[in-house]
Order: sequence, then structure tokens, then C-alpha cells
Amino acid sequence: MDKKKVAVLGASGYTGSDLLRFLLVHPGVEITHLTAEKHAGKMISDVFPHLKGIVDLELKPLRPKSIPKNIDVIFAALPHGTSAAVIKELYERDVKIIDLGADFRISNKNYKKWYGQHPCPELIKKAVYGITELNRDKVKKAKLVANPGCYPTSSILGLAPLVKNKLAEESSIIVDSKSGVTGAGRSPSLDYHFSEVNEGLKAYKVGEHRHMPEIEEALSNYSGLNVDVFFTPHLIPMDRGILSTIYVNLKKKLTTKKLINIYKDHYKDEKFVRISDENVYPSTKQVRGSNYCDIGIKVNSSGSRAVIVSVIDNLVKGASGQAVQNMNVMLGFEESTGINTTPVFP
Amino acid sequence: MDKKKVAVLGASGYTGSDLLRFLLVHPGVEITHLTAEKHAGKMISDVFPHLKGIVDLELKPLRPKSIPKNIDVIFAALPHGTSAAVIKELYERDVKIIDLGADFRISNKNYKKWYGQHPCPELIKKAVYGITELNRDKVKKAKLVANPGCYPTSSILGLAPLVKNKLAEESSIIVDSKSGVTGAGRSPSLDYHFSEVNEGLKAYKVGEHRHMPEIEEALSNYSGLNVDVFFTPHLIPMDRGILSTIYVNLKKKLTTKKLINIYKDHYKDEKFVRISDENVYPSTKQVRGSNYCDIGIKVNSSGSRAVIVSVIDNLVKGASGQAVQNMNVMLGFEESTGINTTPVFP
Amino acid sequence: MDKKKVAVLGASGYTGSDLLRFLLVHPGVEITHLTAEKHAGKMISDVFPHLKGIVDLELKPLRPKSIPKNIDVIFAALPHGTSAAVIKELYERDVKIIDLGADFRISNKNYKKWYGQHPCPELIKKAVYGITELNRDKVKKAKLVANPGCYPTSSILGLAPLVKNKLAEESSIIVDSKSGVTGAGRSPSLDYHFSEVNEGLKAYKVGEHRHMPEIEEALSNYSGLNVDVFFTPHLIPMDRGILSTIYVNLKKKLTTKKLINIYKDHYKDEKFVRISDENVYPSTKQVRGSNYCDIGIKVNSSGSRAVIVSVIDNLVKGASGQAVQNMNVMLGFEESTGINTTPVFP
Amino acid sequence: MDKKKVAVLGASGYTGSDLLRFLLVHPGVEITHLTAEKHAGKMISDVFPHLKGIVDLELKPLRPKSIPKNIDVIFAALPHGTSAAVIKELYERDVKIIDLGADFRISNKNYKKWYGQHPCPELIKKAVYGITELNRDKVKKAKLVANPGCYPTSSILGLAPLVKNKLAEESSIIVDSKSGVTGAGRSPSLDYHFSEVNEGLKAYKVGEHRHMPEIEEALSNYSGLNVDVFFTPHLIPMDRGILSTIYVNLKKKLTTKKLINIYKDHYKDEKFVRISDENVYPSTKQVRGSNYCDIGIKVNSSGSRAVIVSVIDNLVKGASGQAVQNMNVMLGFEESTGINTTPVFP
Repeated sequence: MDKKKVAVLGASGYTGSDLLRFLLVHPGVEITHLTAEKHAGKMISDVFPHLKGIVDLELKPLRPKSIPKNIDVIFAALPHGTSAAVIKELYERDVKIIDLGADFRISNKNYKKWYGQHPCPELIKKAVYGITELNRDKVKKAKLVANPGCYPTSSILGLAPLVKNKLAEESSIIVDSKSGVTGAGRSPSLDYHFSEVNEGLKAYKVGEHRHMPEIEEALSNYSGLNVDVFFTPHLIPMDRGILSTIYVNLKKKLTTKKLINIYKDHYKDEKFVRISDENVYPSTKQVRGSNYCDIGIKVNSSGSRAVIVSVIDNLVKGASGQAVQNMNVMLGFEESTGINTTPVFP
Repeated sequence: MDKKKVAVLGASGYTGSDLLRFLLVHPGVEITHLTAEKHAGKMISDVFPHLKGIVDLELKPLRPKSIPKNIDVIFAALPHGTSAAVIKELYERDVKIIDLGADFRISNKNYKKWYGQHPCPELIKKAVYGITELNRDKVKKAKLVANPGCYPTSSILGLAPLVKNKLAEESSIIVDSKSGVTGAGRSPSLDYHFSEVNEGLKAYKVGEHRHMPEIEEALSNYSGLNVDVFFTPHLIPMDRGILSTIYVNLKKKLTTKKLINIYKDHYKDEKFVRISDENVYPSTKQVRGSNYCDIGIKVNSSGSRAVIVSVIDNLVKGASGQAVQNMNVMLGFEESTGINTTPVFP
Repeated sequence: MDKKKVAVLGASGYTGSDLLRFLLVHPGVEITHLTAEKHAGKMISDVFPHLKGIVDLELKPLRPKSIPKNIDVIFAALPHGTSAAVIKELYERDVKIIDLGADFRISNKNYKKWYGQHPCPELIKKAVYGITELNRDKVKKAKLVANPGCYPTSSILGLAPLVKNKLAEESSIIVDSKSGVTGAGRSPSLDYHFSEVNEGLKAYKVGEHRHMPEIEEALSNYSGLNVDVFFTPHLIPMDRGILSTIYVNLKKKLTTKKLINIYKDHYKDEKFVRISDENVYPSTKQVRGSNYCDIGIKVNSSGSRAVIVSVIDNLVKGASGQAVQNMNVMLGFEESTGINTTPVFP
Repeated sequence: MDKKKVAVLGASGYTGSDLLRFLLVHPGVEITHLTAEKHAGKMISDVFPHLKGIVDLELKPLRPKSIPKNIDVIFAALPHGTSAAVIKELYERDVKIIDLGADFRISNKNYKKWYGQHPCPELIKKAVYGITELNRDKVKKAKLVANPGCYPTSSILGLAPLVKNKLAEESSIIVDSKSGVTGAGRSPSLDYHFSEVNEGLKAYKVGEHRHMPEIEEALSNYSGLNVDVFFTPHLIPMDRGILSTIYVNLKKKLTTKKLINIYKDHYKDEKFVRISDENVYPSTKQVRGSNYCDIGIKVNSSGSRAVIVSVIDNLVKGASGQAVQNMNVMLGFEESTGINTTPVFP
């Protein structure tokens, strides 16, 4: 079979770089087009020395019209707004599009509130929200997939069995998330300057982060409930990893053992979701570099409150890995192709 | 005035070491006796090379009877159980005792449940819980002070204004705490082995940590309410610092601005508690090495939930610094003597 | 073709774990036997949670006789002395053996001086020193390969072109190496306790590290010279990576450009050695998780001294990756099979 | 006695911030004027939240003429070039000036070569190079002190006894230095972006760093020899600390013990230099936050080569601490006033 031709738009960020890591070992695709507006004209290995001798492609400027017609799959890792504008121009082509940005993840109403005017609101409804484990059937038929945000991925997978089974009080949900610094991208600023971030820990955008409506919409769509989430992100002095500690009031009394079984059952066919045994809580370190989401579970002694601890690598299951997983589903490859890597521990 | 003579029992741990850092610059005291069971016979600078040329004392074995009679103040930084047994033998002396361990922080009933049989339950009631800002008057008259735990200090100071003003729904409180690794002490184990901890993040003892009853008792005693707390600790790959993110349902609607004013008013005379302005959340890095507790505040848009972000240096305000603060109150020194240091940033 | 059956002796350390990472994606082998003396009876995923759902093998006690006869390749990641004793018992079998320990790397004379009495000195001469790029032909025919140490790998690859071309003054060589903490293994001790190591930096065993004679022997054997090296290792607060800064007085005047060309020529057919361009020096981060050795080169303005900066991932090219590379050569697989992974950046 | 009035020019960098930490506890001075060109008009605690409630001064624009006439001491922590231009305007005032920049550290000849045209070359000769331990008598009488660079401080203190006693072969000296990231300052750039620097290690400006001529001049002036140094700096993923590993060929055979005694004797009256015992090498962690320089020493078995390991906190003994030490000498305060703090370990 001919290899599918892949383009990565916005290849000079961390998400772009990790995409290449997976696509390079994927037997069904070949990378043929890379763009990076700021670095156009350079080789990708000038921007990422770790790729020297591995990928030898020139970075092109971001011009939709210059993307070759023979491209089969486009990954867009672009700033919000830009992404939608570019995808609008490409949508009519015979191509599969996976957008790793925020432009097609939430309804136009919420987009307006949290991001502003959308360049092509008519396309939002055509996009499928690509949390693969929950939306696999829709992803399979999608032309345009909105790849979930990193915080939402850990939160939604951690909450799905609770909301699907109507066990969660919809308005009680608190997601306290902690993220490594790669989540903030590759643009230098004082906020992510080494000496400011290292050996410190802080909360930011408490109750006001744009990933909050994304979590709410995804869970509401999935469960039919009207899910309300309070979300607090924190910045942790490490490169990769998100850990979300999720607090939920239960609609009926449960034990830890019972809830663990509900989760194991819910995810029993999922390769990339692993449920921890009682009294064991996952570390982000055990998923680093891989596409796994590991989940630990605790119910308090009275049975009224559940605590879910969900960990992922923000750049993999929270971005590039899940994007490739979605591509595999869209193109009919075995779902774990190319992302079937063991976590890099330690 | 003669300097007060000070003994530190358990001087070879991180708490002991940081105690020395403050006591050494305190003009009113001199360190004359150090014990360290495992390292008895060595010089303190053999155990802590950073103290070479600064403190030249031999570490003695831990024998209550061998502690010189002329000692005025004893700091005990010992394992629980050991601490109470030692203090029992010393209690009748004319000496002030500050216990940095857990033995006198909670009621006998809770002690039994969470730690086991207490060696001298009769002394528990005589001890004053040394969260200085809230219990200053009692500390002033105390002979024995139970210095608060690190997680409780950040949690209690973060919650005090809410519970005192009856604004918190007592059973809604969730404390999601994140701690640097020094909180786990200096004994090597796989759990705190560099390569296991570094670049990772995990939760532990979810809803089952011994600091949970300590927080509940302290806040209940302070407010007269029956406070119920759900507590989750996390381990963060950094040396020092605790950040507690506290979620509280409010009994009456508030705005962020109003709640900040309540906090500023509550702590208006407190040197070591600093309240952040709206939309500003403190980093642990801004208190490192110092006795400050910095607090950021957010109320959700409907006014029904408050989020408090409280940061301290776990070894200072969460242990040694507060211990010296308590000593200052007990002995009549100006409260910030010796601990009046600027945070070491970055 | 049937897959080759592989045993890993000492699978519960970091080297063992990283071996599994590569062997698991190697199409020509299957892992069928794991030993771990301390953890015998446990599943490998109890010891390494990141392997849950990926490898489901029980750890066996280390008994040479119990290793199944159908094993084709044995990797030994054992303490020195133990390794030789075990290999002695297995040597007569029809099996390929790759020893990741120190027992067969140096001559019996040096072994006695630096390690003590050798359990089977007669086997030392039968072993091939497995620095693949330099000894490929011998590795191809070897039954027993001594996989190089981590510091030696970075040093030897960094120095090989200089000594082979008789450009180095043999007695002038200084290797100043810096290693991440995984190099110290997985056994907890105060020296590698998180809070002791993090945010600090130290030298150790200055001029007295056991890797010094290994570097000297390997380079002497390779070049026919009598190479003398002064070696200083340092411990760096990070998980993975070794950077060796190598200072050499030159026998004849050179420029940076010329020396870079000599290196590029020397390694022109080597996939895993990458030479940096002038004024570019590699970071350990650009090889993390991969089998690459990246080398930067500088000659001083007078042309009399060369400085070589050589970086590897200590667990990969410095241990498990090179071990698999050697296995590939020994068994006739394409040399990069299974280790053809892109560095995990960042 | 009236307190001396102090101005800090360039107060919004890490050096400025650490200066304040020491000056604030100095009983003989008060800080009355702060400048920060980029942040003029803000309060210092807006730029450095850790100073909230501790220093409440407005940052002024950098205008020499606006610096009040009653200032007794000026610390300049400014970019090179700017510093000299400002000091030129202030030099005629009755004021002591300590320049923490590079403008007055080296001869005009070297300045031209390494930095460019000097704004006031006539002042270079009037400045005293403020490596306090070696130049104390000159510092005492100086009006303008050039505070040494961070790398030079660790290197010069590590080499001084060897060159002074004519034990070092002048052209054999190699300084391999490793620095924490605060040494690069507070301006964001990709080079110091958290995710680029963390968990990595690199060399830079090999043999071409501007601190090389500074080390050579200082040691030549101190010893009367013509000292030649090869210098390689490295960036280490930690906040504070420099470790310099120094290699020297000896002019006469020595043992480690003898050389340690020479160092102990050389520094016997120095509070801030501590010599380690045989086989002990200092970690940067044992000096963090303090003004100490700790030195470990090794001579090879043949007695022909010495290795010196010298550690400092780059922001303290390598910048602000030594600046205050120099101020103390210049103004007649006891030399350790204000900087007499215990290292913050861990």
C-alpha cells in the first residue's frame, strides 16, 4: 500500500515536534510537508537539533494554497484563530484534517465568550471532538477532528465513567490540574523563564481557564447531563505531564472497590487507559513519552465523595499522541500504530 | 541580658538544620546542645557540610537525663511517639518546650485513631497548638507548644478567616495540597530516590493523611464550628514549598473583592501573612526560605464558591520558622526576631 | 522467521527497564525470562508501574540453572562479580551473552586493581568490548560482549578519531564528565535522595573512578597508543544524560574546521554518531531517550588544544541501547532495529 | 551612627534582588534609591512579589543626575557599557561605587578586544578589582570597585594559592565551569526557556567566554606570573550555584595532603573560604544563598597534576554577597556584616 502523505502545519513547536516523533515510526505514513511561519526557510533540524539526521525537510511558510494537493492528512498545530482560517481554505479538499488547536472544540456560543469571533462558525458543527475513547465511531467518519486540549483529555477520561453512569452530582465537580511547563509552548516569556519557574509552583487563571468550557461541553455531550465544572490549573516545575485530581459528590453511595470496577469495566477494551488498583495512585512519570492515561480512584469512608487521579503526558495523550490515534481511526489503521511506545521511565 | 540556652533534639534532619539557620542569627539565644541518635559522636558539620565553620557542636545521643539543666528552651524534632516519651521526662523541668512532631497536636481520641497509643495522654491538654497567628495569646503562656504540621499550617491560615466569619459550609471543604520533597524528611527510600521523584508528580494517601484530623481540630477549635475537611496531598519535584488549593462552598454570596478585604482585615496586623490582590496568585517560590504565608483568593462568578491558594515554605512557616516564632512569643522576644529574613528568590 | 528468545537478568533496575523498552519494539525478539533477585515472585509491572499492560512477566530469582535452555540471548544487568559468576555458568550454552556490567570490560590486571579478584579470569579474553562503532567486526563474531560503561562510551566515541589519527598527546587527556542521576542506579541512599541531589552539583571520585582504566584500555587497544586519561565525574540534578568535556593537547596544529572534518569523515557511515557544525555544541537533551552520541568540537586559536564535547543518554547509548545495538550486530539484524527511536525532546 | 544611604541601579534583575536581600539586614545601611529602566514607575514589589511588605520603594528611571546627592554608596548592576557611562557621570561625587558589571574588571586593551570601545578608559585604572580575599587592602582605599564576575570568583579563589606559590605551570590551566541558570539573568529567551534548559546540560562559548581574560588578568596581577587559562562554561538545570573543576600541571611534585595544607594556610584568616578535607568535594548545594566559597583538592598519584573543585553561589559570592563584602571593607564595617547568613540547605 502507498504511504499516506502527511503535512504538519506549525511544526516548530513542542506539539509539532512530538507529532514527528510518532509519525516517523508509523509504517503507513510519510511526512512530506512542514510549515513554520517564523522559521520558514530553515531546516527542521536547525530548529530542533534532536532531529538532525532523522528528518531533513525545509520549513515552509504557512500558505494554505502552497500545501501540495497530494497531501492526505493535515495536522494543524497553530494558534487559535489562525487554525480556523487556514482550515476554512483547506476544508473542501479531499483531505483529512486534525486540528490540535482550540478552534473546533467548543460550540460557537462558548467560542465567542472565551476566544472571540470565529472565522468560520459553520465548520464547528462539522468537526468531531476527538477524545478517541469516547467518540471513536464519530471520529471514524470525520473529515475534521478537533483534537482535545491537554487538561480536558485528562479530565474527561477521568470523569467519563462517573457522568455516563449518572453517578456524579453535575454541579459538584472540581478539577484541580497540575501541568508540566511544555504545556505553555515554546515562546519565551518571563512566566516560563527557567529561573522563575524552577523550584516553584503556582495556580493561574483560577476558574477562568479556557479549557473549563471544553471539559463541560465534552462531558455534557457524552452523558446527556448538564455538567458544570470548576477548574484550577497549576504550573509544575517539570517538562511533561498532567495530573488532574478530580473531586465529585456522588449521587449514590459507593465504595472504592465498586467504583474501581465501574472504571475497569468502562475502559476494558481500551489499550491506552489503565486503571490502578485500590490504594495505588499513578505518577505522571509512569506515562511520560507515551499515549497512556492512568487513573487512580478513591471513595471517602462515607461513600459520598469520589476522588479521581488522572495522569497523562500532556504532549502525547494530551496532544500529538491522541492526534495520531485519531488519524489511525480516521484512516483505518490499527489504532495504536506508531504510538505503541513504552513510557520513558525514568 | 544573658542569652537563652537552646537544645535541639533531632538535629540531623532538615527541620533541625533549618532551625539552626534561624537560631544562629537570633540575638537572644545560643545553641548549646544538639542530639541525633543515629549520628551521635559526630560533629554537626559532618552531617551537614553547609554548617562547617558555623556551628561546631558534637551531636549527642538522645537521653533526656543528659540534657543539661541550664537549658531554657527545647526544640524536639523527633519521630512521633519518641517525642512524647522524651517530653514526658522533661516536662517537670523549668523549661519551655516546642515540639515539632505530631504528638501534641490533636486530641487523644484522634491520636489513637491515626497514630496509636499515646505515651502520655495527660500532657496533650496542657499543650497549646502553635499556629501563632491564631493562638498567640495561648502560646504566650504555654510551657509546651505543639508546632503545627506543614500541610496544616498552609491550610489553617488559608481557611481561618472563612471559618471564623462563618462563611464556609463546614462539610464542603476540600484541601488539595502540593508539597516539595523535603517534607518527606532525610531518610533514604525508593519513594524519595531522585530518579523516581524528579520530573514526576503524584498524589498519595488520598483522604487518609494524618494531617487531615489536625486541620479539622484546629479549625473547629478556632471557629466553634464542626469543620470537616477532605485532604489530598501531592508530591512535587522540588525541594521546598507547599501550595494548598482550597475549595469552599460559601454560606452567603460574596465577590472576590469582598473576600479579599475580609482576609486583609483578618490578617491586618500580621507580619508573616500577605494577601495577594485580585487575579494574583502566589508562587511557592516567593516565600522560599522565609516565614511568610502568602494567600491568593478567588470567588466564582455566581458568588457561591471560594478558592483559596495558600503558599508557605514547608520547612520554615511549616516547621522551623514557626517554631522560632512561637519561641519568641513564649519568651517575650519581638515576634519576628531571627526569622525576619527576605525570601531567597530565585 | 522465529523470534529470538531473550532473557534479562537483573530486570528491576533502570538499565533493565530501558532494555525492555527497546526489546519490546524489536520485531526479531521476544522477552521470555526476567530475573530480579530482590523482587522475585512479583510481576515486573509491580516493580515498574509504567510497564503495566505492556509486559506481564513474573520476575524469577537469579539462578543460572533455571534459565530455560531455549533462550537465545542473555542480557546481564547485574552487580560486578555476580555477573561474572553467573556468566561462567552459562558460557558453555549455545547462547549469546551481553554483559552490561563491568566484569569483562578490562584486563584481569586492571580488574584486580580496581575491583578485586575476578571469578573467571579465563573468560575475560574471550569477551569483546562492545563499543559498536569501533569494534563492530569483533562484536559480529562474539559469543560474549562486554557492553561499555556510560562514561566510557561518551569518552571513547569522543576521543576515537583523535587517537586513531595519532593527533592526541597521549598523556594530556582530561575527561571532565557530567552525569544525570540514573547512572547511580535504583538503590536508595542518602547520596541520591532527592533533596540532597536536586539543585546541587558535585564532583566525586576525582581521578579515582573505575571507568578511568576502562577508557584507557579501550582507547589504547583501538589506537595502538598507550593512552593515559585523567577522569573526573560529576553528578548533575537531572534524570538522564552524560556530557563529557574532553581536553586534549594536539601533536600537530589544527583548526576547528579541519578537526570537524576529521570527525565527520571518521563517523561518516555511523547512524548513531552525529557531529555538530562549528560553534555548535550539543545538549544532552537532544539525545534523551535515544541511542545517539552527539559531538561538538573546538580547537583553540593557536591550534594546540582540542576540546571535544560528547553527549549521550547514559541509559541508552551508555547502556541498554548499545546493548541492543550489539545484539543486532551479533545476530545479524539491521543494526538500528528496535533502537531507531527519535530523541524525546523536550 | 547614621545609616549610610544606598542606591541600587538596575534593581529588577536577580543580582539587584539578591543585593536587597543582604542590604535589608545590614544594620549600617538603608536603601533609599532604586532604578530599573524598563520598570520605572512600578513598585519593586510589583516586579518581585517576594519583596511585598519588605521593601516599598518605587523604581526610578536610570538618570545619573536624578540620583540624590545624599547617597553614600552606589551599586551598579547594569549592562556593560551602560554601567561605565553612568559611573563616568557619578565619579566626581563624594560617593563609593561598586560596579557589579564587567566595565572596570579588565584592562582597556582586553576590554576593546572582548567588549568593544570603553566609554571612559581613564577610569579603568582607578578601579580596584574587588576579589575581596586577595585585594582587601586596595579595596579598603578604593572609590570605585569592580566586583568580579561569577565564574572568575570561583576560578580565582580556587587558583590563587597555586599561582601565588608558583606551583602552577602557567600555561596548563584548564577551568571547566558549570553554572546554574540565574547566571544568565532575567531576560526571557529561548536559550533559558524552562523546557529547553530543564533536564539538559550543555557547554557554550568554549574557549571564548569573556570571563576568560578576566581570570587571566586577575591571577597574573595577583601572582606576577603570566597566567594563561582555557575556560569552558556549561549550563546546568538548577537555579543557583557554580562549580569550577580546575586542572593544573604542577611545577613540583605534591601530595593531596600537602596541597590541602597550602590552601588551608593561604585562607586561614578567611571567614568565607572553606577548604574540604581529603577525599571530600563540595557540592554547590552546601553554599546556596550564602557568601561561602568551598574548595576541594586532589593531586594525582604521581604528584604532577592538581585538580581543584571550587563552589560558590553565583548570585552571592559571585555577585551581590561579594559586593556587600566589598562595601563593608570600603566603609569600615565588620567584613561579614549583613552577609553572615547560613547556607539555605536543602
